[in-house]
Amino acid sequence: VTAGEFDRIDRLARHLAGRSPDVPVGVGDDAAVVRVGGADVVLCVDAVVEGVHFTRALSDPADVGWKVVAVNVSDAAAMGARPRAAVIALHRPADLGEDDVDALYEGMAEAAARWGVQLVGGDTVRAGEWAVGLTLVAELDGPPVTRGGARPGDVVVLAGALGASAAALVAHAAGVPPDPAHLAAHRRPTALPATGLALAAVGATAMIDVSDGLGSDARHLAAAGGVVLDLDPAAVAAAVAPGVPRALGEGWLDLARGGGEDFALLATLPADGVAAAIAAVGDAGEVALHAIGRVAAAADGRRAGEVWLGTDRRIDHLGYDHG
Amino acid sequence: VTAGEFDRIDRLARHLAGRSPDVPVGVGDDAAVVRVGGADVVLCVDAVVEGVHFTRALSDPADVGWKVVAVNVSDAAAMGARPRAAVIALHRPADLGEDDVDALYEGMAEAAARWGVQLVGGDTVRAGEWAVGLTLVAELDGPPVTRGGARPGDVVVLAGALGASAAALVAHAAGVPPDPAHLAAHRRPTALPATGLALAAVGATAMIDVSDGLGSDARHLAAAGGVVLDLDPAAVAAAVAPGVPRALGEGWLDLARGGGEDFALLATLPADGVAAAIAAVGDAGEVALHAIGRVAAAADGRRAGEVWLGTDRRIDHLGYDHG
Repeated sequence: VTAGEFDRIDRLARHLAGRSPDVPVGVGDDAAVVRVGGADVVLCVDAVVEGVHFTRALSDPADVGWKVVAVNVSDAAAMGARPRAAVIALHRPADLGEDDVDALYEGMAEAAARWGVQLVGGDTVRAGEWAVGLTLVAELDGPPVTRGGARPGDVVVLAGALGASAAALVAHAAGVPPDPAHLAAHRRPTALPATGLALAAVGATAMIDVSDGLGSDARHLAAAGGVVLDLDPAAVAAAVAPGVPRALGEGWLDLARGGGEDFALLATLPADGVAAAIAAVGDAGEVALHAIGRVAAAADGRRAGEVWLGTDRRIDHLGYDHG
Repeated sequence: VTAGEFDRIDRLARHLAGRSPDVPVGVGDDAAVVRVGGADVVLCVDAVVEGVHFTRALSDPADVGWKVVAVNVSDAAAMGARPRAAVIALHRPADLGEDDVDALYEGMAEAAARWGVQLVGGDTVRAGEWAVGLTLVAELDGPPVTRGGARPGDVVVLAGALGASAAALVAHAAGVPPDPAHLAAHRRPTALPATGLALAAVGATAMIDVSDGLGSDARHLAAAGGVVLDLDPAAVAAAVAPGVPRALGEGWLDLARGGGEDFALLATLPADGVAAAIAAVGDAGEVALHAIGRVAAAADGRRAGEVWLGTDRRIDHLGYDHG
């Protein structure tokens, strides 16, 4: 999501539903929540396009299928929702053969089985370029966790590691064989739905998935909550995936923080809930949870929406342009 | 949907969910039905691609936005479901300007307002070609009306007129200015959700929307129900939109029947329910309902899935290839 895209979302907001009894969460979060047949249904949609979001050089068709499921499950996870079912829009170019399409569906089915998603249908359209869109439906055990609920005094927590996918791309671009673990993180990203449910259950006040880079997504949380986030540089560095500093070289921390496609979960919690959250996320069994900062009020010249790394460094824009 | 696509759906069925308590309707109908948070939620997805489903020569961006909403509302209508909310995947090429994107959303918003759909979010991705995918969520008042419930003795009914969109395309291809009403039917098709709800309420046993052409979609109903459909040639001819015979010239009835994009609803009903259905569809206020045939058992050398026009003409394949 680029800055230009946010402008467009603002301009188009008049066409899109804001909050209402029928639409508990409208445009502008990781997913929308709609009241249908008496239930609150979480809806998210993400599309991937060849040459923009993936290349055949790095990802085989099964990887592409896996990824389009994972990115949507990650969005649902960030609402504290349980993924349930998905429909697919496959844009199929002439050079995508039968075996490729089968492999694409195999990869989707693997990811869907892993995260309990039923693939219930879809549309295949002839197209000049290969793209896959997926819409995921998820359900809630309690209220959705939006981006906007962070309160001063909350602790900022991160579940998952940063920089592995970025490191694979940098190595590939440099003609160096990527670290296998980094390549796997790029090809077969791991979404964290059990972690998202656990964080929601222990009272997360706000949550977002780190898809555009920690810096960029932290700024979304800060802006939506009208607060400032103070991140601890050492804690952020400790959340970088193993081997990433070596793979990225100089500036590794900025690259890891900005790289995106981490599918980690960034959340805020009341300070007295952090110990319970660490235990609950541990029980969920996906990744460990790390406290990486604090939520502060906008004051002393620091404005709502700002993210600070230590006391002297404000993060302006560190995000990978997926648009 | 092409014959090749149906083969693929069969091959891929092992990856997709069939019926289960969690998935009351799986792949192979106009929409899927999924149990989410205790509610039965209807899900449909349709994508349109420039050069395949629309051209800028005939449709402006607002028309494209209208159409992608209409095709999905039509799918929901064919389940007897009430459209509620949608998410959008916009594949945006570099030559689709800001004003075009605004107009696209304007057209979507107009159609959404007309049919009570909340546009709750979406994803914009950079792409080489212009495409728009839309996923619609709808709710049910009663059991969904599937394609498979037609029973011998039922009456076949059609709501809506045939051939207008096809006539506009034929005229355009011939360099003749299309009839304005036909062009409007192509650019701004009318979905029939109130009609679909009315037909469901009066006990329709099966329903499908006529998107691929009456002949093709009637065969889907016949195949899914394991029955034969006997259509009355005069009644089918009477369901053709005004001006279509003149616009299509010789062979107008075959062209009208095969043209597709009619977004009419084809349903089956117990014979003693037809009068109530005609009244209920009249009250819905969208279009009139016409009885156009009967459902028969496969017998006397006629096989399940066949559609007959009168006693001597079997419809083999008359459908427009959207794939």
